[in-house]
Amino acid sequence: MRNLSLLTDFYELTMMQGYFLTGKHEEVVFDYFTRKNPFKGGYTVFAGLVPLLEEISNLQFTEDEIEYLRDRDLFKDDFLDFLSDFSFQGDIYSVKEGEIVFPDEPVVRVHGSLLEAQLIESLLLNHLNFQSLIATKTARIIQSAEDKPVLEFGLRRAQGKDGALSAARAAYIGGIAATSNTLAGKIYDIPVSGTMAHSWVMSFESELQSFHEYARIYPHNCVLLVDTYNTLKSGVPNAIKVFKSLQEKGVDNFGIRLDSGDLEYLSKKSRKMLDEAGCQEAKIYASSELDEHIVEELMDKDSPIDAWGIGTKLITAYPDPSLSGVYKLVAKKKGNQLKPVIKVSNNPVKMTNPGVKNVMRFYDSEGKMKADLLYDQNEEEKLEKRIAEHDQICFHHPSIDYAHFDITDYERTEKLLQPVMQDGEMLDIESDLDKIQNYHKEQISALHSTHKRFLHPHIYKVSLSTNLHNMKKNLIEEHKQDKSY
Amino acid sequence: MRNLSLLTDFYELTMMQGYFLTGKHEEVVFDYFTRKNPFKGGYTVFAGLVPLLEEISNLQFTEDEIEYLRDRDLFKDDFLDFLSDFSFQGDIYSVKEGEIVFPDEPVVRVHGSLLEAQLIESLLLNHLNFQSLIATKTARIIQSAEDKPVLEFGLRRAQGKDGALSAARAAYIGGIAATSNTLAGKIYDIPVSGTMAHSWVMSFESELQSFHEYARIYPHNCVLLVDTYNTLKSGVPNAIKVFKSLQEKGVDNFGIRLDSGDLEYLSKKSRKMLDEAGCQEAKIYASSELDEHIVEELMDKDSPIDAWGIGTKLITAYPDPSLSGVYKLVAKKKGNQLKPVIKVSNNPVKMTNPGVKNVMRFYDSEGKMKADLLYDQNEEEKLEKRIAEHDQICFHHPSIDYAHFDITDYERTEKLLQPVMQDGEMLDIESDLDKIQNYHKEQISALHSTHKRFLHPHIYKVSLSTNLHNMKKNLIEEHKQDKSY
Repeated sequence: MRNLSLLTDFYELTMMQGYFLTGKHEEVVFDYFTRKNPFKGGYTVFAGLVPLLEEISNLQFTEDEIEYLRDRDLFKDDFLDFLSDFSFQGDIYSVKEGEIVFPDEPVVRVHGSLLEAQLIESLLLNHLNFQSLIATKTARIIQSAEDKPVLEFGLRRAQGKDGALSAARAAYIGGIAATSNTLAGKIYDIPVSGTMAHSWVMSFESELQSFHEYARIYPHNCVLLVDTYNTLKSGVPNAIKVFKSLQEKGVDNFGIRLDSGDLEYLSKKSRKMLDEAGCQEAKIYASSELDEHIVEELMDKDSPIDAWGIGTKLITAYPDPSLSGVYKLVAKKKGNQLKPVIKVSNNPVKMTNPGVKNVMRFYDSEGKMKADLLYDQNEEEKLEKRIAEHDQICFHHPSIDYAHFDITDYERTEKLLQPVMQDGEMLDIESDLDKIQNYHKEQISALHSTHKRFLHPHIYKVSLSTNLHNMKKNLIEEHKQDKSY
Repeated sequence: MRNLSLLTDFYELTMMQGYFLTGKHEEVVFDYFTRKNPFKGGYTVFAGLVPLLEEISNLQFTEDEIEYLRDRDLFKDDFLDFLSDFSFQGDIYSVKEGEIVFPDEPVVRVHGSLLEAQLIESLLLNHLNFQSLIATKTARIIQSAEDKPVLEFGLRRAQGKDGALSAARAAYIGGIAATSNTLAGKIYDIPVSGTMAHSWVMSFESELQSFHEYARIYPHNCVLLVDTYNTLKSGVPNAIKVFKSLQEKGVDNFGIRLDSGDLEYLSKKSRKMLDEAGCQEAKIYASSELDEHIVEELMDKDSPIDAWGIGTKLITAYPDPSLSGVYKLVAKKKGNQLKPVIKVSNNPVKMTNPGVKNVMRFYDSEGKMKADLLYDQNEEEKLEKRIAEHDQICFHHPSIDYAHFDITDYERTEKLLQPVMQDGEMLDIESDLDKIQNYHKEQISALHSTHKRFLHPHIYKVSLSTNLHNMKKNLIEEHKQDKSY
């Protein structure tokens, strides 16, 4: 693994030296959170944690990196010496990979010296933003495909090598059955799959010959691409001839892939032709610039498609190729205490939620997620006691003062942020992708379908505890009165 | 460098074994070309060649990769033995990195055995599609910024590690002055830059103190972020105080960065405040979700912005996060000759241009690009003779039969595809990024401004020679009559 200590915005290093030279080694707390759900959707799927923590534990500045920095003519020897001994020693709290999260709630919380917490910002954002984006896109596609398997085919259109590799990992968390990316399969131990390209068909004298040869070599993985010349006039009839000969050999695991044209029309026509020829067992795969909206529409129209191959729009998260995740200072040590800080802004939605926080998720009696409550770590015990006693809990809107409500009709709660790294050591957290995928499946099924609608989804409530609400309000007031800045 | 032999779609490997087992080792030719310009624009900037060729020369299947494939239970020992001795032995022709290219013309041409040419497909598409996409996006932003420097700030929102790294390389080709990505700076030897984040300002007791400390440590790189609290009421006034003290020390290289709010309003107000305070030399940097359209609009409104920091929308190529580049079989050896092949389609724009081709670019007397002519390699000598004699040349529309025109008013021509790899050995081609950036600048300045318009650009003509036009027509006819498929 390449050492990624320099995979950081240059200003992290200049600021880091600034903190070093001004003696600012104090403990601080940063929150990672998103500003909005991608794709105008109702949820975000969190992913990227395990690879991030591995990178953070490996961070070091070898002689090679130090020399590069020295050549910038900006860094002092003292600071470079400090860097050459550097390793991340902080604590990290996080929600689980595969979890459903929402805007404005802390998803990851980093405690460390100002220097180390600042250094990892770019690395953290790069990993979590991208993998969460792809896991979310995939979850939406999986949702549209109902119970049909989705295969990830995006390598050729991905944003670089890692844009394909780490995306395949995230897509697996989001629910794909397999990837076409062989290296991703090997690195992450996830299933790989693939059939044939048009060039296979074109490299033979005839389409029929190319199909026969393929079936001879891969009798048990025989998915024939039928649109090289003419889908209904040659592709499907030729495929049927080959399937009949496979049937004679007792093989029944075959299918066709449609990669162009009108997929509703072609899948229905092909199905009919296959069935009439006695190839009911033939599966129909579809690919061709698909996304969750096209899949949903084709499913709604009862297109007889058994599996979906999705490339470009999954792997690049079209049309929202970035997630708005940010990493903001929320507390800093003064004396012995972590004091909340706030980034004020003329735009109320850009104000951060201050303090060392956790998120309590409330579930209703049907096991569905009801609402999330952000609270200050200091009030945790009190809150847990109220919950145990089933007291009413007040939920405050994060920026609108008069908007608040009480709930008592909750069945159970769950605290979302848990320790995942302590003193720079990664804790024993789930890294098995099958288990993470399963966890994600459980969680997404606990989300009300109204939040999963593609068009104008119901907004899931992320609220502040009364205590946190008051703290935020007071900090804003203090700020308005403070003329010292 | 990680060995990327498995960074390939799994079907490339299953097809490859298929070719191996059916004895199809014949020479073939594949073309890489795009189907349309991204961003509804008038051009594409080609990038990614040198890293791709390096990866291709390094391709090998070590014991580790062979074992992984063996475990798939699909590959025969003979084939795996073949792979363990594999290296790419083909020839590659390409346009230069930084070149301006257009849809439907061959940009890279690969000659090799069917097995090796097929294997590299995914790797080639992954590299060239992404880097060309980012170089194109950057060129558009550079164009909108006129002569002002553009800095690339996208690491935190990029699609993975390599989505940031290889994108920084491509952005440099497209014309950025520097990147914030330190590792990209080191790997590609391109300038890095960066200033401060809001967390710097918030980590001090006051904004003014944070500015003073920064100026003390970085007197010669003092760009102050002025929007943490209130841009015009505190940020700019505090910056002015610091600049005055820098001026007293004889420093004149400082500035402010605006990262939120209305950039036209704030830049004009800030400029006025800075000038009135005697800080005419202070530069104004702007960032905040910018793209070529916003920059163009702000420049049109004479916003006094001296440098642009562009992150998310450059690094993810928003709103078109993928390039439609494809890799298609265009010829295969029969006996001693490479015979043209065509992928027919009901959609005429999806028909490929058959045969072993090159592109002749015609320039007018003002040194501007006039049109590109695709021709068959076999007619090159004849064509060059006609050009030398300044004969009239006929240009045929690639799919509309009656659309053709003759030109004689050309000043010079250039053959775009040149050998870059021979028998698997990379040739001595330009890899210095400064030189590639300069080449790109020359080329883009030779493109008429009408092709560079963001809205409805003038379509640059990519045509077929008479010979190629006839060949394509005949192949389509043959195909329609051929019932053997």
